[in-house]
Amino acid sequence: MEGKANGPSENQAGRSVSGPTNPMVTPLLNDLYQFTMAYAYWKAGKHDERAVFDLYFRKNPFGGEYTIFAGLEECIRFIANFKLTEEEITFVRDSLPGSCEDGFFDYLRGINCSDVEVHAITEGSVVFPKVPLLRVEGPVAVVQLLETPFVNLINYASLVTTNAARHRFVASKSKMLLEFGLRRAQGPDGGIGASKYCYIGGFDATSNVAAGKLFGIPLRGTHSHAFVSSFMSPDEIIEKSLKSSDGSHTSEDFVSLVQTWLSKIQWSKSLHGIFGETNQSELAAFISYALAFPNNFLALVDTYDVMRSGVPNFCAVALALNDLGYKAVGIRLDSGDLAYLSCEARKFFRTIEKEFGVPDFEKMSITASNDLNEETLDALNKQGHEVDAFGIGTYLVTCYAQAALGCVFKLVEINKQPRIKLSEDVSKVSIPCKKRSYRLYGKEGYPLVDIMTGENEPPPKVGERILCRHPFNESKRAYVVPQKVEELLKCYWPGSSDKRREDLPTLKDTRERCIKQLEQMRPDHMRRLNPTPYKVSVSAKLYDFIHFLWLNEAPVGELQ
Amino acid sequence: MEGKANGPSENQAGRSVSGPTNPMVTPLLNDLYQFTMAYAYWKAGKHDERAVFDLYFRKNPFGGEYTIFAGLEECIRFIANFKLTEEEITFVRDSLPGSCEDGFFDYLRGINCSDVEVHAITEGSVVFPKVPLLRVEGPVAVVQLLETPFVNLINYASLVTTNAARHRFVASKSKMLLEFGLRRAQGPDGGIGASKYCYIGGFDATSNVAAGKLFGIPLRGTHSHAFVSSFMSPDEIIEKSLKSSDGSHTSEDFVSLVQTWLSKIQWSKSLHGIFGETNQSELAAFISYALAFPNNFLALVDTYDVMRSGVPNFCAVALALNDLGYKAVGIRLDSGDLAYLSCEARKFFRTIEKEFGVPDFEKMSITASNDLNEETLDALNKQGHEVDAFGIGTYLVTCYAQAALGCVFKLVEINKQPRIKLSEDVSKVSIPCKKRSYRLYGKEGYPLVDIMTGENEPPPKVGERILCRHPFNESKRAYVVPQKVEELLKCYWPGSSDKRREDLPTLKDTRERCIKQLEQMRPDHMRRLNPTPYKVSVSAKLYDFIHFLWLNEAPVGELQ
Repeated sequence: MEGKANGPSENQAGRSVSGPTNPMVTPLLNDLYQFTMAYAYWKAGKHDERAVFDLYFRKNPFGGEYTIFAGLEECIRFIANFKLTEEEITFVRDSLPGSCEDGFFDYLRGINCSDVEVHAITEGSVVFPKVPLLRVEGPVAVVQLLETPFVNLINYASLVTTNAARHRFVASKSKMLLEFGLRRAQGPDGGIGASKYCYIGGFDATSNVAAGKLFGIPLRGTHSHAFVSSFMSPDEIIEKSLKSSDGSHTSEDFVSLVQTWLSKIQWSKSLHGIFGETNQSELAAFISYALAFPNNFLALVDTYDVMRSGVPNFCAVALALNDLGYKAVGIRLDSGDLAYLSCEARKFFRTIEKEFGVPDFEKMSITASNDLNEETLDALNKQGHEVDAFGIGTYLVTCYAQAALGCVFKLVEINKQPRIKLSEDVSKVSIPCKKRSYRLYGKEGYPLVDIMTGENEPPPKVGERILCRHPFNESKRAYVVPQKVEELLKCYWPGSSDKRREDLPTLKDTRERCIKQLEQMRPDHMRRLNPTPYKVSVSAKLYDFIHFLWLNEAPVGELQ
Repeated sequence: MEGKANGPSENQAGRSVSGPTNPMVTPLLNDLYQFTMAYAYWKAGKHDERAVFDLYFRKNPFGGEYTIFAGLEECIRFIANFKLTEEEITFVRDSLPGSCEDGFFDYLRGINCSDVEVHAITEGSVVFPKVPLLRVEGPVAVVQLLETPFVNLINYASLVTTNAARHRFVASKSKMLLEFGLRRAQGPDGGIGASKYCYIGGFDATSNVAAGKLFGIPLRGTHSHAFVSSFMSPDEIIEKSLKSSDGSHTSEDFVSLVQTWLSKIQWSKSLHGIFGETNQSELAAFISYALAFPNNFLALVDTYDVMRSGVPNFCAVALALNDLGYKAVGIRLDSGDLAYLSCEARKFFRTIEKEFGVPDFEKMSITASNDLNEETLDALNKQGHEVDAFGIGTYLVTCYAQAALGCVFKLVEINKQPRIKLSEDVSKVSIPCKKRSYRLYGKEGYPLVDIMTGENEPPPKVGERILCRHPFNESKRAYVVPQKVEELLKCYWPGSSDKRREDLPTLKDTRERCIKQLEQMRPDHMRRLNPTPYKVSVSAKLYDFIHFLWLNEAPVGELQ
């Protein structure tokens, strides 16, 4: 391998791949032991031995039976631009014992990923434990340097995408889902990553401006409690005029128009007695916001009291806007009993519609956003609510219910020799060999089982009876006659091979793939409580080989 | 405020402050609503009104009664370089409704933080709920744009520092603590941030090379299971010679030397029968690692079987190294019953020391690293173990036990008018007014209580009797006669004031501060089970004012 100039490398098609979204993703974003191992491989003359590693996880998160795979694009961007700078090499040298030989640093200077092959499942796919998400093949010392960045880039990406998909599942398709997590995320790109991957997982928009700019994700946001309490009273509003929507006339005193509506509502026959004097600071804030955004008036109504102040104030401003031909958007609730308050607000809107003959006032949008998660969404559904959009932050982006996915990167072959990692805990034994994997579909179009085979076994065929075995449990096996066979691993980085490089899909395509794949799953795998595990298997041949290798490597005990 | 040229701004002392560690921390790392509000403030002519915001949290994490404050340096780096680029302004313009006036974007072009004042508690301090960590004062529209980045930069930093401090507390001072979390962290700078803040919280080193480079944190790392299983047998080792430590002689066949030692151990009178043939792949890996790092030989011993293969193989290599004047470092255990295995390994080392007369062989270092957290450390202590160093990853860096700290940023004053945010939930009511806060110390040197006062109240004095009131609970109050009074908020960014700017401490100083502050706390606040809450209070005057304002803003209900 010869060193290449810095800068984005080109693939076979001549198209260059941009670097990682976060410029901090460099070859040094790595565990030190990858470098100490690289040195030991080099010292043993072993560094160029061809190794195959599988990246996979062992257990679905959040008590569910599925995971969404995400993070692949960032991995490809990383290897496409993988190159140690002189400064980085100097730092590595300073971090290793002084006895390390110079030749190693010359070697480091020369490495890149032009001889590494990456096969992967398409980003946005539904995936399952033990089935490789990535199969990475190349010189052992180089591939070892990819372990930590790859696992870092995939672990959280897949976890938070899965979390978003689970929230979407509970919220149902008809609701708008907004990701509001930036401030509570685990660091700046915890926030940026969350926005990207929640969008893939089925969210509609984010509050995160940087993510909007980087990825083209739709943005949402209006105002906070601080905005409301920064005003004292409508008296402080200086510029009070508002031109009508069609430009035909101007209300010279929009504040008075609002105040007139407020007293009309207060004294209307159906609403009389529901509220007394509303909070004037809030009223001033709503009026100011409407003057700034007459076409986009959405008000946060819980700074003081939702039904006695926020909703009446909102309605007065919305009705005044309506007089000028503008249509208010709606309200946001950020505390209290969201089910109850949304129903009460809806009733209030309905009454306004009837009482004052304002068409569609009832359909005003209601957004809710207070510490929501899968459980609270489920509880809201059970109680009955009138919320149209959910703004979800903390629990979504930090994956509060389970903050980590345990992806691992295991050596499965070196120099064409299959390798296995044993463990007292059977679930931690790795599945050896360079493998292929397939998803087999049944008559009703649902995926039935994923099967891994040795690389050179003939692929499963449609209509053929195939024995699928549990990799470690002798008695668990089943015959399957697939109606469709899908090979899971595609070549996203061909290295020095002449394989065609799979294009990286756009973010929108990945999102659509994710949504479609979820819809395609048999419903019992997807339910929140006691979902049915999806089957993951190996071919009969691979099964036999695993167990041969296992016996071969495990020491024989001596009972004493 | 005039626009300034891009690049790091200078403080009064003329010293420039570097930008945020992560270049993705820009003014667009923000919630969209900060920009819509900025527009509404600007449209109302209110954008330059002087506002004071408090940044604080409401509840200590992890069921504890303390938190460590961290993230301040990154906040200061952010505001020192706060400036929207033309590209960013264009993006904001495209994200806001087309009706927004041009003048606003000229305004955005001109803003920076030269008129913002930031007072903060020193990074690395022990802190408590409700007491402001930061008090940020400046033009309301600008300060509003700081909310999201500040909260993002402080939330996770403080959370993970606290988590690290809690792990240190359980592990006790005498153990070495290594942060191994990069691959499981929530994104790349989840990893980099974790390494930095775990170091502040009392960890000794990290595996994360990038964090080592950025912050000068000591690095640790040796090899993985993949390294072990990448070897087949000692036969494949080509370069077998090893020069002695003092350079005086060379073993031409280090492999044979190791094999001789292995059979000596196996047939020694005290160890005979403990193990049969050890794994040859592992033996080859250990020998190769020792040949690469004869002075730093630390072996991962659980790839096949700890006591029947890993430990005997390690000892054979360590004894061969000893013949050549090198001292092996020790072993790492990454699975199984760590308490039991560490004790067994120690026994094995002791037997070797006695049997073969190798001084200090018993003291070989034992590192443990399998899914450790506060609970498992505690359990290991109770069982009794022989571990010298703990490598902690997933649970530490993702703050698995509680993945988010709920920091908030609340308006407490605008135009010299105190503001309050009400809520049905008393714990969510904000404490109004521009405030000062003090820590009062008792006779034994322990901190007794934190007290907040109005900005212009006279500070509490040593030896004076002070009434400390719970901010919301009428009946909770106590007199305190402090032996020492410490003002908590210091000026870290003077803005246009002539205050002296507090220097940002080095990372090492912050770490030392944290360790000292923790030692200074009364032990009952620190214990893991049922710790005593530390008292947080307000002055009598502030108490009265809070309740006056509360009554003033809350609507009066009408029972029907």
